Amino acid sequence: MSVKVSIIGASGYGGGELARLLAGHPEVELVHLTAETRAGEAMADLYPNLRSFTDLITTAADPDRIARDSDLVFIALPNSKAMEFAPQIAPHARIVDLGADFRFKDPLVYEQWYKTAHACPLLLDDSAYGLTEFRRSEIRSSRIVGNPGCYPTAALLAILPFLQAGQGSAGGIVIDAKSGISGAGRTPSMGTHFSEVNENVMPYNVGSHRHTPEIEQELSRLGDSPVAVTFTPHLIPMTRGILVTAYVPVHNGLTTDDATAILQESYAAEPFVRVLADGLPQTKATTGSNFCDVAARVDRHSRMLIAMAALDNMVKGASGQAVQNMNVMLGFPEELGLRSPGLYP
Amino acid sequence: MSVKVSIIGASGYGGGELARLLAGHPEVELVHLTAETRAGEAMADLYPNLRSFTDLITTAADPDRIARDSDLVFIALPNSKAMEFAPQIAPHARIVDLGADFRFKDPLVYEQWYKTAHACPLLLDDSAYGLTEFRRSEIRSSRIVGNPGCYPTAALLAILPFLQAGQGSAGGIVIDAKSGISGAGRTPSMGTHFSEVNENVMPYNVGSHRHTPEIEQELSRLGDSPVAVTFTPHLIPMTRGILVTAYVPVHNGLTTDDATAILQESYAAEPFVRVLADGLPQTKATTGSNFCDVAARVDRHSRMLIAMAALDNMVKGASGQAVQNMNVMLGFPEELGLRSPGLYP
Amino acid sequence: MSVKVSIIGASGYGGGELARLLAGHPEVELVHLTAETRAGEAMADLYPNLRSFTDLITTAADPDRIARDSDLVFIALPNSKAMEFAPQIAPHARIVDLGADFRFKDPLVYEQWYKTAHACPLLLDDSAYGLTEFRRSEIRSSRIVGNPGCYPTAALLAILPFLQAGQGSAGGIVIDAKSGISGAGRTPSMGTHFSEVNENVMPYNVGSHRHTPEIEQELSRLGDSPVAVTFTPHLIPMTRGILVTAYVPVHNGLTTDDATAILQESYAAEPFVRVLADGLPQTKATTGSNFCDVAARVDRHSRMLIAMAALDNMVKGASGQAVQNMNVMLGFPEELGLRSPGLYP
Amino acid sequence: MSVKVSIIGASGYGGGELARLLAGHPEVELVHLTAETRAGEAMADLYPNLRSFTDLITTAADPDRIARDSDLVFIALPNSKAMEFAPQIAPHARIVDLGADFRFKDPLVYEQWYKTAHACPLLLDDSAYGLTEFRRSEIRSSRIVGNPGCYPTAALLAILPFLQAGQGSAGGIVIDAKSGISGAGRTPSMGTHFSEVNENVMPYNVGSHRHTPEIEQELSRLGDSPVAVTFTPHLIPMTRGILVTAYVPVHNGLTTDDATAILQESYAAEPFVRVLADGLPQTKATTGSNFCDVAARVDRHSRMLIAMAALDNMVKGASGQAVQNMNVMLGFPEELGLRSPGLYP
Repeated sequence: MSVKVSIIGASGYGGGELARLLAGHPEVELVHLTAETRAGEAMADLYPNLRSFTDLITTAADPDRIARDSDLVFIALPNSKAMEFAPQIAPHARIVDLGADFRFKDPLVYEQWYKTAHACPLLLDDSAYGLTEFRRSEIRSSRIVGNPGCYPTAALLAILPFLQAGQGSAGGIVIDAKSGISGAGRTPSMGTHFSEVNENVMPYNVGSHRHTPEIEQELSRLGDSPVAVTFTPHLIPMTRGILVTAYVPVHNGLTTDDATAILQESYAAEPFVRVLADGLPQTKATTGSNFCDVAARVDRHSRMLIAMAALDNMVKGASGQAVQNMNVMLGFPEELGLRSPGLYP
Repeated sequence: MSVKVSIIGASGYGGGELARLLAGHPEVELVHLTAETRAGEAMADLYPNLRSFTDLITTAADPDRIARDSDLVFIALPNSKAMEFAPQIAPHARIVDLGADFRFKDPLVYEQWYKTAHACPLLLDDSAYGLTEFRRSEIRSSRIVGNPGCYPTAALLAILPFLQAGQGSAGGIVIDAKSGISGAGRTPSMGTHFSEVNENVMPYNVGSHRHTPEIEQELSRLGDSPVAVTFTPHLIPMTRGILVTAYVPVHNGLTTDDATAILQESYAAEPFVRVLADGLPQTKATTGSNFCDVAARVDRHSRMLIAMAALDNMVKGASGQAVQNMNVMLGFPEELGLRSPGLYP
Repeated sequence: MSVKVSIIGASGYGGGELARLLAGHPEVELVHLTAETRAGEAMADLYPNLRSFTDLITTAADPDRIARDSDLVFIALPNSKAMEFAPQIAPHARIVDLGADFRFKDPLVYEQWYKTAHACPLLLDDSAYGLTEFRRSEIRSSRIVGNPGCYPTAALLAILPFLQAGQGSAGGIVIDAKSGISGAGRTPSMGTHFSEVNENVMPYNVGSHRHTPEIEQELSRLGDSPVAVTFTPHLIPMTRGILVTAYVPVHNGLTTDDATAILQESYAAEPFVRVLADGLPQTKATTGSNFCDVAARVDRHSRMLIAMAALDNMVKGASGQAVQNMNVMLGFPEELGLRSPGLYP
Repeated sequence: MSVKVSIIGASGYGGGELARLLAGHPEVELVHLTAETRAGEAMADLYPNLRSFTDLITTAADPDRIARDSDLVFIALPNSKAMEFAPQIAPHARIVDLGADFRFKDPLVYEQWYKTAHACPLLLDDSAYGLTEFRRSEIRSSRIVGNPGCYPTAALLAILPFLQAGQGSAGGIVIDAKSGISGAGRTPSMGTHFSEVNENVMPYNVGSHRHTPEIEQELSRLGDSPVAVTFTPHLIPMTRGILVTAYVPVHNGLTTDDATAILQESYAAEPFVRVLADGLPQTKATTGSNFCDVAARVDRHSRMLIAMAALDNMVKGASGQAVQNMNVMLGFPEELGLRSPGLYP
């Protein structure tokens, strides 16, 4: 008994990756795929890896029809677009939004960082922040899931167990993140031009990246007190992958073994978080998969906990976690269609 | 009802990729994984993408025990090693060898190119060349399958339909191939050292690569006459993928439409060969999948047919085709465990 | 006693590389740098490697003023733009055009391939094709030099010595070329989007690339008869570099030693062509330098000469050769400002 | 009047880059180049970019002869090798050591981190730490210069101006560094194997990298108090370049403008440090050059100063700074042979 699923925004990388993952999901039937400028093109022409997997032709977005025909709708559009469609869709179909529109509990925070008033703040009450490992029950019962940003997914999975365990100070947390270029999406620009970013590493949006309030919201809600972090993202010359190296000042006798035990306890039952006791996370171990690998070390010399997480920004950092949330929302086994190892090398 | 499968040489990239693919095969139970210098290590430590998929520990190779415990054995060892193990294994279990030892019908050709006498030439009579699309019935009934080399797989899939259709001259065929670095295996060397091969393109083994006689054997057997080719491989700064651009002189009025039709007819029923009528093959469309994308153009101006093929050298060019052959040998549906789209981007 | 030089089109990669090279030229004073959409920006903001080397601000192109103020003008604009400016500039200053407008002796060939009538065909009579090694005296005395395309530079340097030596047939020549992405210029597009071209190899413009007639013109003029070639370019996931692998049928007893001797004789006095007797060309050996490395092998088995050339498409394939031509035109030593080793690794 | 210079350890990347840079130095005559396992090979075969620049053949190291024949000797060997040669060389020729043997003032720190007793601790008294910008006068008068590590060069240039200005706390400094793979040298290993490190980002030596005490020594000596830092290096899939992102807690009203002014004041007279007021450092702006680009931002929200530095680990991070130090030691203009823009793109 399959469910009917549509993707609004299928031509971007988030949408393409959803289509790839759903092609292997035994309970999903894809109904509508929408694209804007490229509407009318075959999905398999937009994503040549999907040749022989789908004959669907992308269409312009018709939210009423999509809502009527679908049990669940993924929205993979630029920020502030989902909140235009959501009011029409939400009464008929559940929604997983891969953008930022439904990630914030406080619409003023959204407005402050995204420079536009929220179009449907009432819907936020029926929305869950989709970090599956920490909000499973809310996700199960919400109309809308605001799928986390790629950086927050990695940062939160690295840090949250420690704050929940009462380790680490709320002040002085540094999150240094490294992302592959696919995180910038499929629209060409100087910032994604091969010759500019290849053989290059650079920080960007220092002190001002929009994922900062998202990380702080969840650290504050799930930890025990308001948290302000220093978050610096960097672009790395590779296609997929995010590595977060987080620095949390510790003022007691926490050891590396303690820290590893905290991670192991937090994630013992989690199907998609792997705790490394010996090795260190590397993005390649997760490429193409829904896994997040985490590890921690304590530098006793400088009294700093170093918490690390690696994941594929396109999968666990976006579309894979979105499918994981869909599974939770619709009562499927959480790993359905998602459990496969990544590519290595 | 699952079959018991072992991998001799699990620590190399061929073995690691077999383990990845078989982790998703519903009818396979992995029994033994062997490694030489790294015997005793957990497979999931050698291949961190396999964490949470296998607890197997690699062992030194014990061919008798492996033969006894297995229905089918993959051998993924350096050339000339498989023919040492095969005589002990073949009476008990069927074999897919990813090396060159069982690819040649004539042991003297093997000896000439691999500089060592063949250790078990009689077994060649019960061996099939494992280019699935062209030797399915032989593969089904053979004890041993000599899985094709990565370059020959791409070159043959690009060219064979034309020779079989009586198009193209047997003389003057040029095969210019471009391969990612994973084709060189997992043993570090100057030729695989990141800083030497990154941002670099170079030809190698010009006029002397060992895949030449393999290509010529199959073009000659499956075409209509002895064929000598010029084959030049190149190393490309990427991990996975092979692109073959083959040039076949044509002396009649063959058009691009004719050429495309020949490919479409040849591969109409093939699950893993996709013929592109409009676009051109690119390796990224196949990354991580068992597909080979082919296309052809005729340059009327210079009277040359340009036949192109792209595939993932680790999958269709090695371990994926090996699993495809296993499926044929054991009577499983040919796509079982193999049908999934590649990663894009 | 320095000369005054301007660059029309300084914001593109050709212009940026000219500025880099000229920063180290002891006899050149840069006067005007023009940009279109980015006019008004500091050159060192457009090219951050030039910080502390130039304070020049780019301006919109004013051809009269540029002509008046300059001894020599480099034009690095999209095709068909140079022929708009040239009539105003040529009477006052000499010109090196990095585009295609002044490469063809026959304006009809230009029109056929570039889909626009030539705007100043009479100026072609006072133009030289700027392959320095083969047209030095014409270059010295011409008003305008049509700087060769990147692919033709590599292809011609690999093949011409053989045709001039009467080796190789005029028919059946195959030129398989591999280029880094910088050859596509600085304007972002899907074809230069990092995530699309990274970890990917693809052919493009099969049988239709505009560098084909340029190669054929020069092979025909400098060889002994009309030549038609099959030319296939490929995009490689690296920034700089072109490797050409050319296949020339040979019907006599030519050996690899003969072929190497022909190259050595041709290039004995050339400062920027290095003949490799033992190794094979690799692009990395030339990165950032004006060298072209060439080598040849004869495959006796298939009766094919394989002639290879590697160069940096930005330097010897464009701006470096342009400066080399400037040196010839203005009577400077040919290596002035250009003789430095590339970066390795 | 040129000086005679030798390189002990010319086959490694440090030695190759020294040879490249010295090929363009107008006052240097290369005398001896030594190699260990590859002694007897032509330097231009080891480094194909140097073809046509040097005919020197590498030899086994004969320290007496080298000392006798040279005015200055560069030692580019693995750690603990230079201190074997130095006692023989130092009486006759000055030394720039690219390894760690002469970087520490306290031989016990060396012993603790490098696990071997220092072989010639007395020579440390006549050694200078070669961070040119901060130790120019010591360098000028020392027999031996311990050339800084690549990470410390970037980290110190980013942070030192602030500590010297009394800004930033001595505790809680985090240094998150990203390095290209060439920093790991030319010896092949799994950690430099293309397919393992390409499309991958990973931390390594977390809390234990040997550059930590070097950074702390200089921050403590040049700052105003003992400093303990948390230093985490990461491997990035590119060949050249280091980016350091350093986090320094600030407890007063320091602004970004203040921070930029501090950098500008510190480096106003420096030829090789460029302070960016508007943009952010990126490694590509420095590739192949001796520049270090620095910038700073203050995140008022989290009270953190983010100080960033980018450089080419092979040049300013190793061989370029070594040549800069040679210029200082020998009384040449500091920029001689070193002032050229990097390659972009």
